[in-house]
Amino acid sequence: MKSILILGAGRSSTTLINYLIKAAEEHGWMVTVADTDLDIALSKTEHSKNALGVQLDVNDVAKRQDLIRDKNVVVSLLPAFLHPIVAKDCLEFSKHLVTASYLNEDIRSMEQEALAKGLLFMGEMGLDPGIDHMSAMQKINEIKAEGATLSAFYSNTGGLIAPESDDNPWSYKFTWNPRNVVLAGQGTAQYLNAGKIKYIPYNRLFSERKVIQVPELGPYDVYANRDSLPYRKLYGIENVPTILRGTIRANGYCDAWDTLVKIGLTDDSYGLDLESIKTYRELVESFILGTYPDIKTGVSNFLGLPLDHEIIRKLEWTELFSDRPIKLKRATPAQALEDLLLDKWALKKEDKDMIIMQHQFEYVLDGESKKLISSMVTKGEDSVNTSMAKTVGLPVAILVKLLLLGKVSLTGVHIPVMAEIYEPVLEELKKYGIDFIDEYTS
Amino acid sequence: MKSILILGAGRSSTTLINYLIKAAEEHGWMVTVADTDLDIALSKTEHSKNALGVQLDVNDVAKRQDLIRDKNVVVSLLPAFLHPIVAKDCLEFSKHLVTASYLNEDIRSMEQEALAKGLLFMGEMGLDPGIDHMSAMQKINEIKAEGATLSAFYSNTGGLIAPESDDNPWSYKFTWNPRNVVLAGQGTAQYLNAGKIKYIPYNRLFSERKVIQVPELGPYDVYANRDSLPYRKLYGIENVPTILRGTIRANGYCDAWDTLVKIGLTDDSYGLDLESIKTYRELVESFILGTYPDIKTGVSNFLGLPLDHEIIRKLEWTELFSDRPIKLKRATPAQALEDLLLDKWALKKEDKDMIIMQHQFEYVLDGESKKLISSMVTKGEDSVNTSMAKTVGLPVAILVKLLLLGKVSLTGVHIPVMAEIYEPVLEELKKYGIDFIDEYTS
Repeated sequence: MKSILILGAGRSSTTLINYLIKAAEEHGWMVTVADTDLDIALSKTEHSKNALGVQLDVNDVAKRQDLIRDKNVVVSLLPAFLHPIVAKDCLEFSKHLVTASYLNEDIRSMEQEALAKGLLFMGEMGLDPGIDHMSAMQKINEIKAEGATLSAFYSNTGGLIAPESDDNPWSYKFTWNPRNVVLAGQGTAQYLNAGKIKYIPYNRLFSERKVIQVPELGPYDVYANRDSLPYRKLYGIENVPTILRGTIRANGYCDAWDTLVKIGLTDDSYGLDLESIKTYRELVESFILGTYPDIKTGVSNFLGLPLDHEIIRKLEWTELFSDRPIKLKRATPAQALEDLLLDKWALKKEDKDMIIMQHQFEYVLDGESKKLISSMVTKGEDSVNTSMAKTVGLPVAILVKLLLLGKVSLTGVHIPVMAEIYEPVLEELKKYGIDFIDEYTS
Repeated sequence: MKSILILGAGRSSTTLINYLIKAAEEHGWMVTVADTDLDIALSKTEHSKNALGVQLDVNDVAKRQDLIRDKNVVVSLLPAFLHPIVAKDCLEFSKHLVTASYLNEDIRSMEQEALAKGLLFMGEMGLDPGIDHMSAMQKINEIKAEGATLSAFYSNTGGLIAPESDDNPWSYKFTWNPRNVVLAGQGTAQYLNAGKIKYIPYNRLFSERKVIQVPELGPYDVYANRDSLPYRKLYGIENVPTILRGTIRANGYCDAWDTLVKIGLTDDSYGLDLESIKTYRELVESFILGTYPDIKTGVSNFLGLPLDHEIIRKLEWTELFSDRPIKLKRATPAQALEDLLLDKWALKKEDKDMIIMQHQFEYVLDGESKKLISSMVTKGEDSVNTSMAKTVGLPVAILVKLLLLGKVSLTGVHIPVMAEIYEPVLEELKKYGIDFIDEYTS
C-alpha cells in the first residue's frame, strides 16, 4: 500500500490533506498526518479509513524516523528551518520530499545524494513561491518556442481581501503572517530595468509603487519585492533586460502605508518607552515634532495633506489619532502597529480572501513588439477555507499524487520550473478554479 | 619616582603625551609610552629624559602586566573594546585608569572593587564625551546653586573645518572617523521635548535639523544625536522637561546630506553589484528610477530642485554625477560614498580643524525665564596638531597630573560630572584656549 506522510496540520493544511485523502481513497493509499497536537491531526483524518492522525514532536528522532521509514512521499508543512532535518531523514530512508517553502542551501547541498538515490526533493511548490514559478515558466517557454525574444518580465502576486468582504478603507485584512506584512520591504529592493540594476531604498519603496490593471477588478498597487535579480537565472532568462517582481495591494494602499513608514511606525529596531507612551495618539505624537492643535492636524501638516484627504481618513480609521491604549508591555513601533492592525485588519468568519497573480511579458516576435498579460484571481470560501490555503496546498498535493502515480521521472533538488511538473499541475489546478486569463496585445 | 603608562600612541595622542612629558620634567616623574609600533612610541618620547618609548602587543599579558605593575596611573588610548582587559590589570595591581572613551558595562561593574582599593577609573575624559560633561555640569550646578529651575537643556558639538581652511561647498572635511561620519545617525534619535519623548527616524534626521548661532561665526546646522534621554540621570537633571543633544555641521550641510540619505547612498546593509556599476554616475543612476536626459537632471527632478540649486552644486562638486570610477572591488553604497569622500574631504597638511561646542540652558529664576548660551570654539594649528587632538587629549592629561599631584580624592568608576574634577580641569583648559563664552539673556 502506497503511503504519504504529512508533517504539520496547521490551519492552512486542510485543502492539501483533503485532496490527498480523496486521492488515497480512490487509489487505495494511506495518508498519515502528524502534528504536535494529536487532536488537530485526528480532526483532519478521522473521517476517512485511508487516513491516520498521529502525535509527533518533530525533535523526537526515533518517532520521526519511524514515521518516515515506511512511507513513499513526505510532505513537510513544518516551519522552514525544520526542513533540513526532515530532508536528511528522507535521504537516509530514500523518500521523496515536497514542501511549499523556499529552498535553502542545506537542502540544495543534498542534490547529488538525492540524484544518486533517485529521489525528488521539490521545494517552492506552493503559491508564491510555487504557482508563480510554474505559470511564468509555462509562458516563458511558450514565448521562446515561438522564436520570440523576451524584453521585459514583470511578476506580481498579492494575498488580498475579496471585494465583497472589503469593509475598510485600506481594502486589506491579514490573510498571511501579520508581522511580515508590517515589516514588508525592509531592506533594499533590487531589480533590472533596461539592462541596468536599480535599487529602491525602503524609505521610497511604497511611494515608488506602480499601478496595474486586473481584468474585471480594476487598478491595483504594486511595490517591488526584495530581489528580482536571481529570477533571471532561475527562469533561464539570463539576458532579459527588464525583470521586476512585486507585491500587489489595493489601489491607494501603498501611498497610505508610505506615510506610516515616513512617520516611523514600521521601525522594528528599538523599544518604545511605554511608561510615557500609553496610547496610539501619544505614539504618533512622539514622531511628529513641533507644535500642533491636535495630532490629526499635526500629521496632516507633516504629510502636507488636507485634513479630509483619503490617507488621513485611513490613518484615522486605524485609530492612530485615538486614545486607544497600547496593550503591549514592551514593543517596537512596528510591534505596536502590528498589535493594532491585528484587531483592525482581522478576518471575519465569513470573509473571503482573494489571491491575485499577474505576469506581464513583453517580447519581440518577427521584429514586432508584443505583450502578454496573464492574470489569475482566486477567492476563498470563508476565513477557514481560504484561497491562500487552496493555492498553497493544492500544488503540493497534486505533485504528491503525480509522484505516487509514477508520472514524475524527475530526480534531484528542484523548484517547479520544468514542463514535466508545471504542465500537469497547472492543468489540474484549473479544475479548482486556479486559472489564468491571458490578454495578448501588440 | 611617580610614573605614568600611556597605552597607544596614535596620531591624536601627541598633545596628551607632550603635556604629560612636560609635567614629568617639572615634577620628576616618568612617562612610558607603549605602542605596537616601537618607532612611533620612540618618536614621541626620545626628546625627553623623563620619557620612555616601548613596544607592546597589548595581547601579550606578561609584558602588559609588567608595564602596568610599577606605574601610578594608566592612560588607555587603545580601541575602546580593549579597555576592560587594561582595567582588570589596573584592579589587580591597584592603578588608577583614565580613558577618553565611553564607559561600558564591563568597566562599570568594577565599581565596588575600585572603591575598595581606593582607585579612580575615569572614562569619557576627552572632548565629546568629556568636555561636554564638564562644561555642562559646571553651568547646571551654577544654575541650581542660584535656586533656579532648569526648563530646557540643549548640548551641541561638532568637529569641523576652520573657516580659513574651508575650500569646499560642504564646508566639511574629515577630522574624525570617516566611516562614523558617513553612517552618522543610523538608528532612531530620541530626546525629550516639553516632557514628551520624541523619536526622529533616520530618514528624517537631517531634514529635521535646527540652526544655531555661534558667536563671531554665524549660523550652524544641528542634527539630533542618537539618545539624549540618559543624560537626564547622568547630569542629575531628572526632571528637566526638554533635553536634546546634537551634532554641529556647517549651515547647509544637513539639507545636502539629507539628499544622500534619500537617494540611498548611506545604506550600509547590502553589497552593490560592482560588475555592472563601475562609476559614481552609474551608482547614482541605480537609485534614480524613471527616465532622464542626464543624471544631474534626473537627481534634480527626483529631489524637486532647480539645476542651479546649492544642493545640486554640492552633489556635483562631490563628483557623484561624474564618470569617476568606483575603486573598491566590494562595497555597500555607504562604503562607496566613504571612499569618494575620503578623497574629496581630505584634510590638507596646512588645514586647521575647528571644534564647536555650544550648550543652551533655559531656566526660571524667581519666576523669570532666563537663558544662557555657552559656546566654545577652538582651532587646530595644522592637520597634525589638530584641535580634535588637543581637546580630546588635554582633559585626560590634566586629570593624570592632578592625580599624581594628590589633588583628586575621588575613587570608583566615574565620568567627569563632579566639581572636584571639572573645576580644576576646565580652569587649566583655559590656558590652552579651550574656553567658553557665556551669553545670558532674559
